[in-house]
Amino acid sequence: MFPKYDVIVVGGGHAGCEAASAAANLGSKVLLITMDMNKIAQMSCNPAMGGVAKGQIVREIDALGGMSGIVTDKTMIQFRMLNRSKGAAMWSPRCQSDRMRFAEEWRITLEQNLNVDFWQDMVVGMVVKDNQVSGVVTSMGLEVLSNSVILTSGTFMNGLIHIGEKQFGGGRAGERASKGITEQLVQLGFEAGRMKTGTPPRVDARSINYEVMEEQAGDVDPGKFSYTDTPKLKEQRSCHITYTNKKVHAILEKGFDKSPMFAGRIKGIGPRYCPSIEDKINRFAERERHQIFVEPEGWNTVEVYVNGFSTSLPEEVQYEALHSIVGFENAKMFRPGYAIEYDYFPPTQLKMTLETKLVENLFFAGQINGTTGYEEAACQGMMAGINAHLKVKEENPFILSRSEAYIGVLIDDLINKGTDEPYRMFTSRAEYRILLRQDNADLRLTEKSYKLGLASEKRMQRVREKRGQIKQMSEELAKIKYKPNEINNHLETLGTASIKEKSALINLVKRPEVSFEKLRSLEGSVAEFLNQFDHEVVEQVEILTKYASYIDKEEKMAQKLYELEGFRIPVSFDYDNLKAISSEGREKLKTIRPDTIGQASRISGVSPSDISILMVYLGR
Amino acid sequence: MFPKYDVIVVGGGHAGCEAASAAANLGSKVLLITMDMNKIAQMSCNPAMGGVAKGQIVREIDALGGMSGIVTDKTMIQFRMLNRSKGAAMWSPRCQSDRMRFAEEWRITLEQNLNVDFWQDMVVGMVVKDNQVSGVVTSMGLEVLSNSVILTSGTFMNGLIHIGEKQFGGGRAGERASKGITEQLVQLGFEAGRMKTGTPPRVDARSINYEVMEEQAGDVDPGKFSYTDTPKLKEQRSCHITYTNKKVHAILEKGFDKSPMFAGRIKGIGPRYCPSIEDKINRFAERERHQIFVEPEGWNTVEVYVNGFSTSLPEEVQYEALHSIVGFENAKMFRPGYAIEYDYFPPTQLKMTLETKLVENLFFAGQINGTTGYEEAACQGMMAGINAHLKVKEENPFILSRSEAYIGVLIDDLINKGTDEPYRMFTSRAEYRILLRQDNADLRLTEKSYKLGLASEKRMQRVREKRGQIKQMSEELAKIKYKPNEINNHLETLGTASIKEKSALINLVKRPEVSFEKLRSLEGSVAEFLNQFDHEVVEQVEILTKYASYIDKEEKMAQKLYELEGFRIPVSFDYDNLKAISSEGREKLKTIRPDTIGQASRISGVSPSDISILMVYLGR
Repeated sequence: MFPKYDVIVVGGGHAGCEAASAAANLGSKVLLITMDMNKIAQMSCNPAMGGVAKGQIVREIDALGGMSGIVTDKTMIQFRMLNRSKGAAMWSPRCQSDRMRFAEEWRITLEQNLNVDFWQDMVVGMVVKDNQVSGVVTSMGLEVLSNSVILTSGTFMNGLIHIGEKQFGGGRAGERASKGITEQLVQLGFEAGRMKTGTPPRVDARSINYEVMEEQAGDVDPGKFSYTDTPKLKEQRSCHITYTNKKVHAILEKGFDKSPMFAGRIKGIGPRYCPSIEDKINRFAERERHQIFVEPEGWNTVEVYVNGFSTSLPEEVQYEALHSIVGFENAKMFRPGYAIEYDYFPPTQLKMTLETKLVENLFFAGQINGTTGYEEAACQGMMAGINAHLKVKEENPFILSRSEAYIGVLIDDLINKGTDEPYRMFTSRAEYRILLRQDNADLRLTEKSYKLGLASEKRMQRVREKRGQIKQMSEELAKIKYKPNEINNHLETLGTASIKEKSALINLVKRPEVSFEKLRSLEGSVAEFLNQFDHEVVEQVEILTKYASYIDKEEKMAQKLYELEGFRIPVSFDYDNLKAISSEGREKLKTIRPDTIGQASRISGVSPSDISILMVYLGR
Repeated sequence: MFPKYDVIVVGGGHAGCEAASAAANLGSKVLLITMDMNKIAQMSCNPAMGGVAKGQIVREIDALGGMSGIVTDKTMIQFRMLNRSKGAAMWSPRCQSDRMRFAEEWRITLEQNLNVDFWQDMVVGMVVKDNQVSGVVTSMGLEVLSNSVILTSGTFMNGLIHIGEKQFGGGRAGERASKGITEQLVQLGFEAGRMKTGTPPRVDARSINYEVMEEQAGDVDPGKFSYTDTPKLKEQRSCHITYTNKKVHAILEKGFDKSPMFAGRIKGIGPRYCPSIEDKINRFAERERHQIFVEPEGWNTVEVYVNGFSTSLPEEVQYEALHSIVGFENAKMFRPGYAIEYDYFPPTQLKMTLETKLVENLFFAGQINGTTGYEEAACQGMMAGINAHLKVKEENPFILSRSEAYIGVLIDDLINKGTDEPYRMFTSRAEYRILLRQDNADLRLTEKSYKLGLASEKRMQRVREKRGQIKQMSEELAKIKYKPNEINNHLETLGTASIKEKSALINLVKRPEVSFEKLRSLEGSVAEFLNQFDHEVVEQVEILTKYASYIDKEEKMAQKLYELEGFRIPVSFDYDNLKAISSEGREKLKTIRPDTIGQASRISGVSPSDISILMVYLGR
């Protein structure tokens, strides 16, 4: 009934969608199996994409030819560039999405992909022989064969929902849990664990008093995620901000004895940086209030996401506490918040390609690897999709280094450090964050993807043109010089020191008070000069100019790392022969089996002296 | 946590949506409880509204101030007026819908209704005391109180899905069944039964060869369902027609031994007029082919509904058979067809208001009453919503007679005849189908609804204007006369006999070959005269003219019925005192307890002589 597929993707969330899309766009025949075709690309948590570090990931996905950026641009209802007041490395795009439109757009995107087939069913097991996967088995009892399988199970595997003292099986509110896969994998020797995440109540906007809240509108000139020609927002919807207070906390505390977290009924570890409201009250008892960020769920719907109020306390406690928040005095809930526990597999069991070490051709992406977040899931899906395709075609794997992309940082962290709590991306996780900016993801990554055959010729051409313009502008810029009398008046207006002798414009731009935008109003040739170039080129040159020394430094560091990464360790390397290394180091090295010295150096427990010994032994 | 509601509606399908909307628009405070807010108004079966007799129902719902017509108009992708070549009583509007947009539009429509609140949860029981319902209990353990409850459980109550030899619990593919309500109702004395329905596989349009099928495009000048100012379709999508053949039948027959229907695993009775393909092959063995109607699921999606191929044979049999249908040689399925069994309650247990006889303030609407079809469900929902509201407000019930509306026919049939197979509306069920046309539902019904407070002043004003124009046109028409030399040339062109003496235009229009449209091109005053009136007024006058004698006859019959309907039977009437009536008649009368002689006359098993005796006894 089914042909043999190159890749079967199990799950239709952010990870599954990008996995299917990437493998199919590279030429693999893909089957996407989802429990409910109406739920493809459901935003289970808040209706938003991007944010600090996460926005960079979406830009990277887009630069690599993934679809999350395009789908997001087409369906967003508000855009903000976060951290504009900080350095360019911190700028992070974030948007609010229309939940229904987002899901619909992803589905249509996949349907337009001629290499993606669909099947609505629940996968209950895999066909595994001699530690190789060759297909899946579904709840209808069907066997579908394939060269590889990508599991993106989200919160569905043995999902258990908690609200107060009640608990019931489910993958999301109103949806069934999936069963069978964990048990099979454990039998095959995998270590499994439990994680927990949560979600706030959904509230009826018609019952909220926005007048007493702080409005947060989108940017005046909204940006977007994709480097392609997606449309810009013309209209936007606002979010609103309010706060909890002592009374809210007191009400919530009354329910603590019924909290599944505090009572220990929840065994899985939750996301540290996205805690439930009861967790925040408990851990930060000194704080008198916590911010509540009220997000609309779409252009038309009145459903509202109460960000910051994730909770698994009994619904009547949620309700009562909500009613003591300013603006929520008469709030009506559509459904309560809840916590959900689900199975994950510690990601140290994976190769850098996201293929499992134990079972060949089996890939994991998303929450199954212990991560949290749409963006984290999506980029893993894309990388798993790419590498599943490459494996099938017997081509070299596609791995991004820590200096090339946040995606590289994320996967490297997962594989080498593992995680025992839901892993979320932060800019602080990246050693090279001045290199890994949202503005240059295309310059960093598109060519690599183009060579793979994923990023299109059009995308690549766009990057070539941008590079050309950057080069041209930089060269011409270097020649522009001003005499003091030509510019000092203007510098004074900008509140920066005047010059005493003829100076290069490029040096003036390095000053924090000066920018091309501010210079544009300078009489004469500067505006004319700037107008030759696209806005993003001018921005790029300015960033390269202002941060030149930092960028240079990080690039040198990255080069060193690159050399270490190039220094490969044979797969069969016998660490027991290395008497001189620490016993902890040896154990970790034996478990992780790093591909390169670079990777070995980032394994927690492997000391710098272990690395030196290893390098000596390997003849370096 | 919850206020006390006037009406709780359980279920968010067609019945639930109309029920919530009607009760709320009349002023009741309504809570709509649905298992999944993303599934409100899901079209579980084919993506279409209307059709023969069903289209009339949608028009009636619209005329009464229901929302199905408006939602349909806003989200349709093709419109056809069926039976245009037959008499006006048979004209039936039908459309293809965009499945996702339809659901979204209904949800937004309800969200805009300030009297409708929402709660996502599963209802597992009701609060019943002294045979009165006063709320519901949910799977989260919550009790929500109300003055009345409307159950619209669709296929969810103890839903059991069959595919070949497999069976599993579920309310729809991929969704959970609901439990608990049937058991409670049976305990309360209700009789419950099982019904069955089915659905065909969903197929990937990209794998279908439309070139070899017959295209069925929408009408050149597409109509719409609502009498209000909904937009007209500018673009349309086509359906396609193909056929099964002997080979397809032979393949399907190979699977008969695994058929859950033929093997007796399915106990519920299925819809006679919407049989599965295996049923059609079995029952009509002499037929060499059956029509397959290929319906697109929306503007953009590639999902396709294979109407006419409903089946619960094993999926590999479905797949193989599908591949022998012309155009489906390479078809890929998204999911297999299946049969589903679910609980219903024989509708003779209801009053004409759709309130149950056993439990006060408890109403049933839709498949729970043994009906099939979106339109049948929607109109019951609306009527239950209206009557639940009226009951709460202690006002007179709102009941439509068989001569007033298809809705009246449907409810009267259900209550008095009951049904042991899924009940579907047909024009043949209506004795007064020349009165119950799709073109005059507004003239028939809007005023009644306006008096209730449901249809808006704007709607009513529209009807007043239409009536005024009809009257004016009819009066003026009566005065228009032609001499032979003025019109005979034209009559000849139309292929109808010439006139010998001065004749009234109205008499010419009665001829089958003549229509206002054809007369419009007549030189002189006719076109000018017609142009004064709206298209629908001209159409109406033409129908009233052409069918005058039939209409008159039916109106007289209806008047007689009306008199019988006015002849009420006391609730406490003691049928045992009526020695002369048949024992079967007595039993049926005691069970149904008809409100009127009219109703009594339609109970199967009650003979005309029983009615005569009853009338004599009651003093007539």
